[in-house]
Amino acid sequence: MNALGRHLLIEMQDCNKEALNDLGFLRDAMVAAAIDCGATVLGESFHHFNPQGVSGVVIIAESHLSIHTWPEYGYAAADIFTCGTTVEPEKAVEVLIEKLGAKNHSVMEIQRGLLVTV
Amino acid sequence: MNALGRHLLIEMQDCNKEALNDLGFLRDAMVAAAIDCGATVLGESFHHFNPQGVSGVVIIAESHLSIHTWPEYGYAAADIFTCGTTVEPEKAVEVLIEKLGAKNHSVMEIQRGLLVTV
Repeated sequence: MNALGRHLLIEMQDCNKEALNDLGFLRDAMVAAAIDCGATVLGESFHHFNPQGVSGVVIIAESHLSIHTWPEYGYAAADIFTCGTTVEPEKAVEVLIEKLGAKNHSVMEIQRGLLVTV
Repeated sequence: MNALGRHLLIEMQDCNKEALNDLGFLRDAMVAAAIDCGATVLGESFHHFNPQGVSGVVIIAESHLSIHTWPEYGYAAADIFTCGTTVEPEKAVEVLIEKLGAKNHSVMEIQRGLLVTV
């Protein structure tokens, strides 16, 4: 039984704190992650919070990537949700870990839409 | 030990197939779900696919809501990621289930940012 979507939940700790508070840098990193894993970018929405932190989402033809950062903890939560067989979300994980300088990370994969496939 | 964020992953089956293919309806439903759970909407991005299906994200001050639909299966995958104590993401789940007419659903909660809190 195949899933309709693959959903990777990435916990990134001990990141570069300046990067976690830089909206432009994070937007570029997320778009690069999407492109590098073979996705087609359709749109994005990023917001900086006061006093710190960024939330952002990149919509791709194959679903989405999202990120929420807590610079004060050096922590970011990212999600990579993809469908289809043309993308390799693991590559997006590698890009984000490298660009954010995450010294520790974990990845959980959840299969979405299992019950409806044949 | 508290988590920085609560992440609800909602699998919705046997939904109203017309609703799952209606971008305007889904955008309104997602924004309503965000508002009804006490969140502050900052932006949104929705896309309709050919021949069918919609992907959309609502960025909120407390993180994000996302949805991906497969009308051909009557299935939608939604995520509600919130931080802080002022929102009640369960209310957003109720709104989406009711608006999409989901006859079956499941909700998985993942705590995000557990390792960095004190």
